[in-house]
Amino acid sequence: MPFTRRNFLKSSALLGGASAFSFAVSPAVAHALASDPTQALAQPFETGWEFARASLGGPWEAWNLDGIAWRTQPLPHCFNALDACDPDHQAYRGQGWYRARLRPSNSLPRGRTLIHFAGAGQRTTLYAGEQLIGRNIGGYNEFVFDITDGAKDIDGQMRLAVLCDNSRDLDTIPSDISDFNLYGGLYRHVNLLYLPAVSLETVHILPQVAPNQPAICHVSAQLYNPLHLTGPAEVSIEVTAPDGSPVFRHSGNLAIWQEARELVQFPVRDPRLWSPSSPSLYACRLTLRSEHGEQSVTQRFGLRHFEFQDHGPFLLNGEKLFLRGTQRHEDHAGYAAAVPDDITRQEFSMIRDMGANFIRLAHYQQSQLALDLCDELGLIVWEELPWCRSGVGDPAMRANARDLLRTMIRQHFNHPSIVFWSLGNEEDWPNIDPGDGTETVRSFMQQLQEIAHQEDSSRLTAFRRCRTATDVPDVYSPSIWEGWYSGRYQDYQKVLEGYRDKIRHLLHMEWGADCHARRHAEEPTGEDYPPFVAAGERSTPAVLPLVKHGDWSETYACDLFDWYLKTQETLPWFAGSAQWIFKDFSTPDRPENPIPRVNQKGLTERDLTKKEGYYVFQSWWAEKPMVHVYGHSWPVRWGRPGQPRLVRVYSNCDSAELFLNGKSLGVKARNSQDFPCAGLRWSPSFLPGENVLRAIARKGAAVVEDEVQFLYQTQPWGKAASLTLTRKAESAANAVVETTLVDANGAICLDARNCVRFSVVGGGTLNDNLGTVTGSRVVELCNGRAEISLRLSGQPSIVGVSCDGVPDAFLRIS
Amino acid sequence: MPFTRRNFLKSSALLGGASAFSFAVSPAVAHALASDPTQALAQPFETGWEFARASLGGPWEAWNLDGIAWRTQPLPHCFNALDACDPDHQAYRGQGWYRARLRPSNSLPRGRTLIHFAGAGQRTTLYAGEQLIGRNIGGYNEFVFDITDGAKDIDGQMRLAVLCDNSRDLDTIPSDISDFNLYGGLYRHVNLLYLPAVSLETVHILPQVAPNQPAICHVSAQLYNPLHLTGPAEVSIEVTAPDGSPVFRHSGNLAIWQEARELVQFPVRDPRLWSPSSPSLYACRLTLRSEHGEQSVTQRFGLRHFEFQDHGPFLLNGEKLFLRGTQRHEDHAGYAAAVPDDITRQEFSMIRDMGANFIRLAHYQQSQLALDLCDELGLIVWEELPWCRSGVGDPAMRANARDLLRTMIRQHFNHPSIVFWSLGNEEDWPNIDPGDGTETVRSFMQQLQEIAHQEDSSRLTAFRRCRTATDVPDVYSPSIWEGWYSGRYQDYQKVLEGYRDKIRHLLHMEWGADCHARRHAEEPTGEDYPPFVAAGERSTPAVLPLVKHGDWSETYACDLFDWYLKTQETLPWFAGSAQWIFKDFSTPDRPENPIPRVNQKGLTERDLTKKEGYYVFQSWWAEKPMVHVYGHSWPVRWGRPGQPRLVRVYSNCDSAELFLNGKSLGVKARNSQDFPCAGLRWSPSFLPGENVLRAIARKGAAVVEDEVQFLYQTQPWGKAASLTLTRKAESAANAVVETTLVDANGAICLDARNCVRFSVVGGGTLNDNLGTVTGSRVVELCNGRAEISLRLSGQPSIVGVSCDGVPDAFLRIS
Repeated sequence: MPFTRRNFLKSSALLGGASAFSFAVSPAVAHALASDPTQALAQPFETGWEFARASLGGPWEAWNLDGIAWRTQPLPHCFNALDACDPDHQAYRGQGWYRARLRPSNSLPRGRTLIHFAGAGQRTTLYAGEQLIGRNIGGYNEFVFDITDGAKDIDGQMRLAVLCDNSRDLDTIPSDISDFNLYGGLYRHVNLLYLPAVSLETVHILPQVAPNQPAICHVSAQLYNPLHLTGPAEVSIEVTAPDGSPVFRHSGNLAIWQEARELVQFPVRDPRLWSPSSPSLYACRLTLRSEHGEQSVTQRFGLRHFEFQDHGPFLLNGEKLFLRGTQRHEDHAGYAAAVPDDITRQEFSMIRDMGANFIRLAHYQQSQLALDLCDELGLIVWEELPWCRSGVGDPAMRANARDLLRTMIRQHFNHPSIVFWSLGNEEDWPNIDPGDGTETVRSFMQQLQEIAHQEDSSRLTAFRRCRTATDVPDVYSPSIWEGWYSGRYQDYQKVLEGYRDKIRHLLHMEWGADCHARRHAEEPTGEDYPPFVAAGERSTPAVLPLVKHGDWSETYACDLFDWYLKTQETLPWFAGSAQWIFKDFSTPDRPENPIPRVNQKGLTERDLTKKEGYYVFQSWWAEKPMVHVYGHSWPVRWGRPGQPRLVRVYSNCDSAELFLNGKSLGVKARNSQDFPCAGLRWSPSFLPGENVLRAIARKGAAVVEDEVQFLYQTQPWGKAASLTLTRKAESAANAVVETTLVDANGAICLDARNCVRFSVVGGGTLNDNLGTVTGSRVVELCNGRAEISLRLSGQPSIVGVSCDGVPDAFLRIS
Repeated sequence: MPFTRRNFLKSSALLGGASAFSFAVSPAVAHALASDPTQALAQPFETGWEFARASLGGPWEAWNLDGIAWRTQPLPHCFNALDACDPDHQAYRGQGWYRARLRPSNSLPRGRTLIHFAGAGQRTTLYAGEQLIGRNIGGYNEFVFDITDGAKDIDGQMRLAVLCDNSRDLDTIPSDISDFNLYGGLYRHVNLLYLPAVSLETVHILPQVAPNQPAICHVSAQLYNPLHLTGPAEVSIEVTAPDGSPVFRHSGNLAIWQEARELVQFPVRDPRLWSPSSPSLYACRLTLRSEHGEQSVTQRFGLRHFEFQDHGPFLLNGEKLFLRGTQRHEDHAGYAAAVPDDITRQEFSMIRDMGANFIRLAHYQQSQLALDLCDELGLIVWEELPWCRSGVGDPAMRANARDLLRTMIRQHFNHPSIVFWSLGNEEDWPNIDPGDGTETVRSFMQQLQEIAHQEDSSRLTAFRRCRTATDVPDVYSPSIWEGWYSGRYQDYQKVLEGYRDKIRHLLHMEWGADCHARRHAEEPTGEDYPPFVAAGERSTPAVLPLVKHGDWSETYACDLFDWYLKTQETLPWFAGSAQWIFKDFSTPDRPENPIPRVNQKGLTERDLTKKEGYYVFQSWWAEKPMVHVYGHSWPVRWGRPGQPRLVRVYSNCDSAELFLNGKSLGVKARNSQDFPCAGLRWSPSFLPGENVLRAIARKGAAVVEDEVQFLYQTQPWGKAASLTLTRKAESAANAVVETTLVDANGAICLDARNCVRFSVVGGGTLNDNLGTVTGSRVVELCNGRAEISLRLSGQPSIVGVSCDGVPDAFLRIS
């Protein structure tokens, strides 16, 4: 049959909603299959794809339109990988198309062939030829499409076209006014599944754990049986302990069943409980055998119990556990949502090394790998439905939110790390639809609350910031940003305690400060830096004026972190908090930021380069001895000759000794309430020119040390007069160029925070749009400096840098 | 009422098609109102708008989303103005939003307030607040929306948001595989109309004209009366002759009527007939008075009759008229579809000055101004439905095509210049849907044919290229491209005559050649330049191989034009043709062209800069004496010392004399069949270095002359070794830089057609994305040269130019 321009099945006519087309097979099982290399039933389907970022009229055009710039594209792939932080343009919101030819080969009689998508943004439609196979509405859930009956060409090949659409849409969540990018693309793994005609769809393991009793585990399963086949089946279950020893075995015959059913329950005596300090994981292998074939899946689970005392702390396995948390978006420099697995592993490892035991996966269902890592590393999880700044919305949006909540809980049910199912975030945002009195934000949250408890009575629901419904979720966090969006950080305790009696189960989610990596201040609390209210956080815009931003130094942020952490140590009633956010991330909301379109509240840059604040947290939370002298990215400090200058040292050790240019400035003991730096601070006078600071800290027998080198500049600087531009480092493939803003005498203007723009002509290409301080062609200076790197070709390049008020500078790179 | 994030009325739920929402008032009348400055009822609504090129979730987001880059945008405006010819990216296809606040002030009791859009691409939706006002599906028709009952804010202001969407859509015409861009935006005029409660909607004047008889004119009108009011009305009609003298007056009372009705018919004795040589226009002023108010509209019309003889010529007003035509897209450098009125006037004036009497408005309904100019200048019009490479499509597409055909005919009914209603173009393109046997391309064309004749029995239908339906339209053009997409131009007559007996009414629409302005060849028919088949024109791709492109010189194109024109003069049976196309235009299909994404078959560049071919046509068609020495943009000719070199002179005069460096080379008489140049050619030997050629031509008493200066290079050149880059011209605000490709000895490689890329760093900005030979940062060399201009700021710039195989060159512009 010739493949001619015809009408394809139109979404408007045929697609009723997400549930009609997706979730045919539980992606939890699909994921278990796909991530288990011993399973012959699954294989990655991540090569052979082509991609075009274009709006097309339908799948016919995906194969027949000239002039579309298709390019080979391995998956996973986010089509906003390099435009989310473009200083000059907003990130693309629209259609992206993927296409591939496939010759399915399922050797099982009447077997089913499925494609498993571990997540794609934001609405995904699959076609075989011009045939509509399925559609998923949701940017963060897993889904499968059954292509067994998909249209093939006469040569037996299937032409698959996938439309990912992240254009703005009021019918879905999260809302477009969210402070993060709603990315597009096949940004998580894609697998082909060759299943028997009858296969396992969902396997849930529900442990009941109580102090000093055997744990009782319930195993239930649901089948995928689209042909409604009947007949006998055999189910085998093998459970192993964290050390691999057998715990339970069972095998039985039963008829192929409908709906979910409990298959077995079994006790675990002397359970090895899961906790942050001992993240012990059991494994359950379930095998289904029938005349249609055999399938095994392995699911991990954990045994733990918890209690959240009213107006008091959180207890895990009977012991008080202060929740030391941070937060995470799925976003990384150069990849956006398509974070490679090794980077995800590195990120969670860094979070754990910092001493965190708690994480909020903001603001949506994250990848199975992320949850697996939380299980393995011992991070208690607050996972969240992306009902974020959406308001009541319309019926389609509400249906989408309900669907996605059920999906998240079903797909992540077995992860022991998850304690909190968050129903959403910031549903009292200005201008969102509060509802009409019958359908209100509060009543809709109650619906979600009921769904969450129906799906999973073993966990708590949670919510951050919704003043009209603080009593609806099991756990609630108000918005407290003292020292950043409002007030002074010194008032944190007072403000926090004001909520203690009002909220039954209080967590404090989101606190912190923006800072521009590599920007430092000698006096961060100076007049230069008033508290301010950011546009996005104005809850009552008529009352709170928008005041000017401060200097966004790391120094100020460290002091704020230090103050909050010192305060939290003294509140035995307080259950815990999560700082916002571990890593800088891109947002459509903040084009005016020092790195345009980047939310810079991270403890690391968007590429996981640590900022100084990371070490502040580590000094409060980590067990392993550490010491860190503030200022590793501060090449020049300044002041008058002989003027005392503050040296901050962050350490979790009992004491530390500081050396300036080899000479001891004395030993100081750590005293948690001696702000800043828990007393580990000195105020020496530096030599003009080169200085070396070295700290040696001791915790019991352990000794750790850290050193920084810097220049001390006593020469004052005048008005900015010109830019320098020099090559700072080089390799065959790359060059790093640095600009400085200097006065008429050539002295660097060390407090300059002007915005500069780099550009290049010739063979080189800027490594930009990365959302990092050294990876943005438009960026604010850090203490008078900025740098960027170039990829070189054989051809010479000329780099330019411009800054309002001074002449452009140029540099030839040969 | 607070304006909160709510559901807006969804297009998928409520919008049934174009006709349900648009065409409430005939835009012909709306246009007559809007373009008549004496009418207080209409005012331009082209300032106060803001624009953002972004996909939004709906009108709520047009007013409430942070981070959307709204900018002030006067109308008309095309949102592809600067990306249609971007060498690096495809033109944007998606949503563009316009918003404005309006305080409507219609002083008439129960008066209606309308917004008139003279055309917008490609689908347009208007909202007041979140209220859906109307939707138009079609990129080229006029439409009005009635905002009388539109939602207002409490302060009485209406928040208007207009969504223009040009994303690809198989349900509409033209097809996305068309060889022109489907632009987006409010690219024609927008007006506010304050009408009485009952007003004139359509006024049609149908003249019946026969030789040597009085013309009989029928005037009919339809009312716009959305409140279904009744009562008495008075209608007055005044008709004036081309010289302003009164022809007819009538006044009468009647009841407010429903549907269209004939109001009056009147004779015109001794009519002044409309023709290209005497484009005489009558005017009819119609005034409606009722208790609701008074409204007058003036419509122009013309009196003419025509005959198309079977297998023979076309006769206008009883005399044979050979149709000498070209074609036009609405497209211009820097504006795309939003061509300013003065440029439109200049363009039609140039077409008329070239001697054309016929024009095809390709491939869609063009602006009223374009039609007004054809009426005034005497250009016979083939206007076209954009059913172009669409195939049978789906029912929605076919309904859209039928709607748009009716709309075009109703809106342009009164223009005397229009003779042909074209039903479409190229509906036998490879891979389009030929239909299923019941609904086929042929049967659908028959439907369109019937609609056209129902709407207007006074004109002919037409079609270009559809081999399965050559007998359906009244007039048919096959595809003949001898010398460009196939064959040799020398075979033109043979191929054309092959159609004479097969086609009852034959016109030859589309012929010509691409050429790169400023590229010239000493020997354009050399081996270097085989006939070739372009990808887009391969009708049987398996049979015709894609052969390499030639040198795209102006010289070859001029010879081809010359040959076709000479041939056409000798065929008394032949009705006429239209060369493709008057002006270069942008297309998504040709990224590999010498100017990427530009169809370069124009007789002018995309900014109306004449190419040499313009003068070839003028020499055959124009009445006014002219002479043109070929090579005004050819600074260096080449050859051996003493080698004879061909000099082409194009003139419509009886004879011409050529002078080389002041010395006569003799007088030659024009002989139309002496190819090339109708015998006006010489083959002198040039001096090495500076030469001056001067032609003096005589036609009766008239004397015209033309001169070119150039260098003659006898030094051969070797392999390309490097690029030069120099500043060629300058002003305070602009600089022009030129690059040349030279060999190791610095000699320009005069046959080089390499592709070069310009870039700039620093304060300057390239004037690029214009689709002209000097306005594209990626462009093929013309005889070893290329240039581009920069807008300068106070800051210095460095321009770079690169070309594969040689080092980049740089130039500092201070």
